[in-house]
Amino acid sequence: MKIAIFPGDGIGPEVIAEAKRVLEALSLPQLSLFEGDVGGIAYRRHGMPLPQETLEMARAADAALFGAVGDPACDELPREHRPEQAILSLRSELGLFANLRPAAGYPGLEDMSSLKPEVARGIDLLVVRELNGDVYFGEKGERAGEGGREGWDAMSYNETEVRRIAHIGFQAAQKRRKRLTSVDKANVLETSRIWRETVIEVAREYPDVQLDHMYVDNAAMQMVRSPGQFDVILTGNLFGDILSDQASACVGSIGLLASASLGERRTEFGTFGLYEPIHGSAPDIAGEGKANPVAAILSLAMLLRHSLGRESDAGRIERAVAQVVASDVRGADLGGTASTGEIGDAVLGAL
Amino acid sequence: MKIAIFPGDGIGPEVIAEAKRVLEALSLPQLSLFEGDVGGIAYRRHGMPLPQETLEMARAADAALFGAVGDPACDELPREHRPEQAILSLRSELGLFANLRPAAGYPGLEDMSSLKPEVARGIDLLVVRELNGDVYFGEKGERAGEGGREGWDAMSYNETEVRRIAHIGFQAAQKRRKRLTSVDKANVLETSRIWRETVIEVAREYPDVQLDHMYVDNAAMQMVRSPGQFDVILTGNLFGDILSDQASACVGSIGLLASASLGERRTEFGTFGLYEPIHGSAPDIAGEGKANPVAAILSLAMLLRHSLGRESDAGRIERAVAQVVASDVRGADLGGTASTGEIGDAVLGAL
Ligand SMILES: CC(C)[C@H](C(=O)O)[C@@H](O)C(=O)O
Ligand SMILES: CC(C)[C@H](C(=O)O)[C@@H](O)C(=O)O
Repeated sequence: MKIAIFPGDGIGPEVIAEAKRVLEALSLPQLSLFEGDVGGIAYRRHGMPLPQETLEMARAADAALFGAVGDPACDELPREHRPEQAILSLRSELGLFANLRPAAGYPGLEDMSSLKPEVARGIDLLVVRELNGDVYFGEKGERAGEGGREGWDAMSYNETEVRRIAHIGFQAAQKRRKRLTSVDKANVLETSRIWRETVIEVAREYPDVQLDHMYVDNAAMQMVRSPGQFDVILTGNLFGDILSDQASACVGSIGLLASASLGERRTEFGTFGLYEPIHGSAPDIAGEGKANPVAAILSLAMLLRHSLGRESDAGRIERAVAQVVASDVRGADLGGTASTGEIGDAVLGAL
Repeated sequence: MKIAIFPGDGIGPEVIAEAKRVLEALSLPQLSLFEGDVGGIAYRRHGMPLPQETLEMARAADAALFGAVGDPACDELPREHRPEQAILSLRSELGLFANLRPAAGYPGLEDMSSLKPEVARGIDLLVVRELNGDVYFGEKGERAGEGGREGWDAMSYNETEVRRIAHIGFQAAQKRRKRLTSVDKANVLETSRIWRETVIEVAREYPDVQLDHMYVDNAAMQMVRSPGQFDVILTGNLFGDILSDQASACVGSIGLLASASLGERRTEFGTFGLYEPIHGSAPDIAGEGKANPVAAILSLAMLLRHSLGRESDAGRIERAVAQVVASDVRGADLGGTASTGEIGDAVLGAL
């Protein structure tokens, strides 16, 4: 089993170090780890945020564990050199079209949310976000016109793109509460019209899943009013970016949330995927041992489940984390004083 | 003073009727009211959601008061015939490029929000949304390709478009707490890069306003975590659609929120504008006298302020509404039993 590890910038290396300790403690057979540079650190060392070598490393691996990218020192660089470009390029180069972002209220942590505890407690949803298309990867540029300089970006989805992410969404719903909410802006966008028509077509293959459609503005409203109504949210790249961050905020403890980005490449043990915490590189606290490594450790659990077929190890990690979260070992993000390493120790202890 | 009144569909006519009673109670000099059809009712009567006659009525008026459009019976119609098209066409035909959506926690109503009371209480923001551009009004269509049918929409902003809405935003901030947050997705979109560069340029003319920039995903997160941090949010059409609905939900009492859409046309008394409640046509409760008319009445107050230069009448209405909201006269949306007419009576009584 080959795992590529990309710690990245800011608190990325700190949280990934703890996830690595957990991984090593599992003593998996024939495990090889490879470490590569991405983001601001890669730009400084190699002149680009995603060096070819890093990309090849991911291509050769069964799965990749990613920390975070983002570096204020790179803010003035042109977009193609900025750290965030690394994650966008990895997603497109590796064909990672399906982003899974579970968000659930953690028992005992409801008071961390700015939502009322009874509302936060009810959250148990999965955002399935398309990750290879939409206005993210359409043609884009600047042109001159009567109104001065104009920036433009082409948004689009075709049936093939929608179908493959819709299948992922419906299959996920089948394993959950069998409800899927497709989010679009079909009252305004042609992209959304094709999206909606294709989702309706795919839904016929999943008669056991209840499908409904919501405009994105209404979804953003419902996510605040009654997030407990959602099971699987299926949506495009741009709306998924917004709604999944909003959902994380509703849960209230972003230091605990993990994500998976999957493509079509099968490995010996499952599907190749890239796994990363929802949180960013948090440059303001980098190097201080204050970051919560739980999101990185839970990303590792998703990796074991989806890419290595090791459901039981994934479950073991998740149970250990739940135990630590319920204990008084809390990081600064949850109002406690435990350091990154102490939280890692506690998870290892509970394992 | 000529006011065009467009009650529209669902609860639109019911809430507008109460706003009209309030307007009549003010006994404005030389007031002429004109009433026109928009939305589903216009489609049924005239075969189109925005008849030419309605548009001409708006063009001839100093201001327009709008109820709501949306009618489930029209769901299967092609987009250009659907009720929502009426509001999109009015915005573009009348050049209403500036949408102002204030959202503030109402004293005594904090418990209506799903946010914790101390969080909801802190909300006092104004979304300034561009309303004539972005992916809403770019070219769009369907084409066939290798991936099957493809829907596409062109997103763009030019400097002229960004400048004029930015001025509105900064001027509004000057009258408020002097903070402006510009929301974009400049790490991905060229449209956003021009947006951000132009906002920075316009900001030089408003050195007393503190400007910051936020990516839309982060803004959606911050709106849940600490909405009290925002004063003016300046953003494009699509992000503004999402964030303003999210902000309304955070406040918790959407039946109380009003909006103004302004253009460049000056009238004898101010700027022509279209005023409407944030809430929709709510077909499920239409005709039952259960709708809260406060948002429509507050929309009238905005109309008096921005289009008719009658600040003191606007303030009078707002004070009367505040008094009613603080009393025990509450509609079903606020957990009470008062009917649409009873709430109207109470506002008239307090006037
Ligand atoms: C860094 C940025 C380009 C990225 C995105 O918009 O997809 C991030 O917000 C995310 O959600 O992973
Ligand atoms: C009805 C719809 C087209 C409209 C929009 O998206 O602008 C509505 O959501 C709004 O915000 O006024």
